Amino acid sequence: MKEYPILHTLNTPEDLSALPEEQLPALAEEIRGYMVDCVSKNGGHLAASLGAVELIIALHRVYTEEGDRLLFDVGHQAYAHKILTGRREAFANLRQEGGISGFPKREESPYDAFNTGHASTSLSAALGMVRAKALLREPGHVAAIIGDGALTGGLAYEALDDGGDSRLPLVVVLNDNEMSISRNVGAMSRSLSNLRASSGYNRLKRFVVRALETGAVGRRLSKRMEGFKNRIKRFVLQNTFFEELGFTYLGPIDGHNIPQMISLLKEAKALERPVVVHVVTQKGKGYRFSERNPEKFHGIAPFSPETGAVAESKGPSCSQVFGETLLSLAEKDERIVAITAAMRDGTGLRPFFDRFPDRSFDVGIAEEHALTMAAGMAAEGLKPVAAIYSSFLQRAVDQLCHDICLQKLPVVIGVDRAGLVGQDGETHQGIYDPAILSAIPNLSVYAPATLSQLRDMVGLAVARGEPAAIRYCRGTLPQGEGEAPVAYGKWAVLRPETDVVIIAAGALVQEARSVAEELSCGLVEARFYKPLDYELLDALRRQGSKLVVAEENVAALSLYVAGYCPELMVKPLCLPDGAVAQATVDRQRTLGGIDRQAMKAAVLALRAV
Amino acid sequence: MKEYPILHTLNTPEDLSALPEEQLPALAEEIRGYMVDCVSKNGGHLAASLGAVELIIALHRVYTEEGDRLLFDVGHQAYAHKILTGRREAFANLRQEGGISGFPKREESPYDAFNTGHASTSLSAALGMVRAKALLREPGHVAAIIGDGALTGGLAYEALDDGGDSRLPLVVVLNDNEMSISRNVGAMSRSLSNLRASSGYNRLKRFVVRALETGAVGRRLSKRMEGFKNRIKRFVLQNTFFEELGFTYLGPIDGHNIPQMISLLKEAKALERPVVVHVVTQKGKGYRFSERNPEKFHGIAPFSPETGAVAESKGPSCSQVFGETLLSLAEKDERIVAITAAMRDGTGLRPFFDRFPDRSFDVGIAEEHALTMAAGMAAEGLKPVAAIYSSFLQRAVDQLCHDICLQKLPVVIGVDRAGLVGQDGETHQGIYDPAILSAIPNLSVYAPATLSQLRDMVGLAVARGEPAAIRYCRGTLPQGEGEAPVAYGKWAVLRPETDVVIIAAGALVQEARSVAEELSCGLVEARFYKPLDYELLDALRRQGSKLVVAEENVAALSLYVAGYCPELMVKPLCLPDGAVAQATVDRQRTLGGIDRQAMKAAVLALRAV
Repeated sequence: MKEYPILHTLNTPEDLSALPEEQLPALAEEIRGYMVDCVSKNGGHLAASLGAVELIIALHRVYTEEGDRLLFDVGHQAYAHKILTGRREAFANLRQEGGISGFPKREESPYDAFNTGHASTSLSAALGMVRAKALLREPGHVAAIIGDGALTGGLAYEALDDGGDSRLPLVVVLNDNEMSISRNVGAMSRSLSNLRASSGYNRLKRFVVRALETGAVGRRLSKRMEGFKNRIKRFVLQNTFFEELGFTYLGPIDGHNIPQMISLLKEAKALERPVVVHVVTQKGKGYRFSERNPEKFHGIAPFSPETGAVAESKGPSCSQVFGETLLSLAEKDERIVAITAAMRDGTGLRPFFDRFPDRSFDVGIAEEHALTMAAGMAAEGLKPVAAIYSSFLQRAVDQLCHDICLQKLPVVIGVDRAGLVGQDGETHQGIYDPAILSAIPNLSVYAPATLSQLRDMVGLAVARGEPAAIRYCRGTLPQGEGEAPVAYGKWAVLRPETDVVIIAAGALVQEARSVAEELSCGLVEARFYKPLDYELLDALRRQGSKLVVAEENVAALSLYVAGYCPELMVKPLCLPDGAVAQATVDRQRTLGGIDRQAMKAAVLALRAV
Repeated sequence: MKEYPILHTLNTPEDLSALPEEQLPALAEEIRGYMVDCVSKNGGHLAASLGAVELIIALHRVYTEEGDRLLFDVGHQAYAHKILTGRREAFANLRQEGGISGFPKREESPYDAFNTGHASTSLSAALGMVRAKALLREPGHVAAIIGDGALTGGLAYEALDDGGDSRLPLVVVLNDNEMSISRNVGAMSRSLSNLRASSGYNRLKRFVVRALETGAVGRRLSKRMEGFKNRIKRFVLQNTFFEELGFTYLGPIDGHNIPQMISLLKEAKALERPVVVHVVTQKGKGYRFSERNPEKFHGIAPFSPETGAVAESKGPSCSQVFGETLLSLAEKDERIVAITAAMRDGTGLRPFFDRFPDRSFDVGIAEEHALTMAAGMAAEGLKPVAAIYSSFLQRAVDQLCHDICLQKLPVVIGVDRAGLVGQDGETHQGIYDPAILSAIPNLSVYAPATLSQLRDMVGLAVARGEPAAIRYCRGTLPQGEGEAPVAYGKWAVLRPETDVVIIAAGALVQEARSVAEELSCGLVEARFYKPLDYELLDALRRQGSKLVVAEENVAALSLYVAGYCPELMVKPLCLPDGAVAQATVDRQRTLGGIDRQAMKAAVLALRAV
């Protein structure tokens, strides 16, 4: 293990405050080295955190007073914050079961002011805190650190709109690395580029202010322009997006220059009003492999620190199969278009984007817009397919219900990362969507248990021309060679009915198969959460089977089966109400009571009734 | 019935096109008169539609070509559009069962391009349509008409961000009446006021452009400012919010001057790029009672056209009781604050806002921000209570899950308009929230069946300091005098158990009571959707009762009961999967199979098993 001479002396933010300013750049280098060390072993969100090291050091040198709060948006970028706030040693167990979380967590440290994981929440939460402090007369200042990617989310805009109007001391630190997970899109991003490009921006502003206030140009202008002087002054002074929304704009500033940032952050804090501090950072900074390929190092599995290489994963992921299938369908049907919300690679759509740039749409971190736009496309005859992670689809429930499903528009949603997701923990679990999606009118919910079914289902859902959600897990599924082809609304009997039948969905079918073989019970593969296979269930009702319904999510399928089969004994095998913390997926299944052992116990218990 | 000589000659938009321009103002007056006539009989959304009459006439004079699309946001303002597109006579049956909808509906008319009801969707849908037309090489132009209120929604911003970047011909018509349902809030609204106030805005702009392009001032400026000329030009030209996002901004223009609007809309259409046309209208225009009180006439019950008076409703509404209860709690606890998303009156919070202006927050149409801000407030020690309609809460599912419930922050949500809502129809039904809320971790879901319970529950939920949703119906509930007080997680036995027990929730308890009495069966009042009353259910299990579970929503409670009681016969009595169209609530219950007759039939069927 390498040595980190400065870092090892720092146990609290107070220790950091005591450090001579000239040692801070060296500290930043040590933190980077330590991060690469740890993340290469456990995986994690490296690139954003590497880029924000100096910014976090500067923030902790400025926000040192009682009641001060630092809020991180998403939280990917907060590793240096964790390391500097009493979790240096614990950082070695980042994202492990029982270790510290990959995201800020209030229950983990008093320095974590608000839990995050999803994007664009920090400004709203910070504004709430500022308002609470004002009402309760509590001390302290609040800064929200938000990436330019997260700023494409409508929630952030709603907070800017309200925050600017509030005139309260809300400091927004815009950590601008030109990336969300993929490279950023949208007009806002372009506008930020313009600001970055104009190093003369602030010089110009100062010049014009001076000229209009006192100078000869101002006098001459005002003579020609009659009453317009104040107006043009306002225009020139309030020329940015943020200033129109009521924020004082400071920047852009080099996000790797600690003394400059400390000085500007102090100024922002002292203004006691809404301020945006625009900080330009480099995602992946300081580690050559992530500098070269920040997207690869956004969220990464364990890798070799010397070569940047990640161990090869076994077989294609569900995301890849989804993307490839959609691409091959699109070759034959020019009405198919692909939509992502800043997740080209994560959702396997990169090849589609490369092949059909005109037919692929990355809307940025804006799941709501993605789905309502898809509805508009469908209303005009396109066949839009949007891929969104299950936990982020929670952002667009109303758009799915109100804009797509009430109108019965043919939009297909690829619900990626459905089920347990492992080390990302609570905020990223794809375990709530089945209950939500099952209630949405006119929506069919497909659940492939094999890659072959996933392929079939993408084709079937597009062909049917109705609202559809296809939910598939993180990682991969069995190939499914030789199995019965997918038919709409039909489940598959994998082992004939006996006294007890396991009905299993998605990734749990594999486990269920081995349990059914061991205990000689029936096995049904529930290929759809909605509709149920009523014909098959009617047969089970006639036979009077006892049912174990296994699903890797909070109760949904099992409840609908129980509701439809009132005369049968139905034992739900699903995750309990609540959150599921970080661990491996296998461990999460065990802790959630849905692993192989639990399945066996459920079958045996039903047999004993 | 009054005469409408011009209007009666118009059956299609083509007839409107053929009308001499000088007759258009008189037509506008006739449309207003006809609207007041019809809406005074049936109720409806009058004020917004009165304000948009001239705008809609102008739009239909410009968007006349094949494939042209007009998209209305929310849809409240589209009555004139309905009247002018073949639904003049049908308009007399607005919002009635079998009549035309109060909102645009594709299934109703080829002139309704997209279904609406919720706010802020039109820009996303329009952008989707523009993209579809471009890809499919279909003819036609698309205009989205959005109110300044709907512009506070983050979804609209996401669409502006993407639309400005697209450079495609998307015309956004900003119908600026300074109101959403309540008066608008937020920095954006203030910025629009500035634009409206500056009648010189466009003169200034033209002047500066000319000066910088050719004039002496420009030359002198550029001499002094060296390389800054282009930059200041860009700043002065792109000085508005919209222009920073890539839109050409035209306006502000008088939204009651038809010729001016036609001319500007033609210009906008011809630009073939993203354009915002800023139109200033008066909400409630042309009917003196609604001009004076546009909020009252936003959505209104039948009223007297001569006096503007609405028949008194019987007893206080649930919203009123909610608001009064919260206010009286707030008198004793200064940590309680109230939050609404543009619904001060609708949610009964007006008295709270009047009494505690510093402790009440109207964030505009921004449900997502409302809840994440509430989470921030709670994290700093406040006790925030947010009131949101059930169908609009669908907008904030992730904020509820990710920001409030995963962190177990003490935010209480008043879920207003829960259950069937009557004439507003599909888009406004509060029938999906129970299934969604029941799946959200750490959230309790309260369901009062009486006003007394509602009072108790608001107090209990605030006191417990946990995430809570209290769902109550539109209109009112029985007083509940003398009933057992509310205890957390406890249901109430209203009639002792027999062979069959009805478990009913919310507004259905009343119906269930009369059925239980008539058929001499047991009756349990399910005061919570979550948690279930496991103790009571265990007693029913021991006794082996058959259960009818009645709820005014798509399946939720009944499924959880069935899942918990595998050995009991459980008959769900809930709305089927799908949408519920406009009708009276009583008729909607009958059509949905959950009325008194259906309840009786369910009990008798269980008895017969």
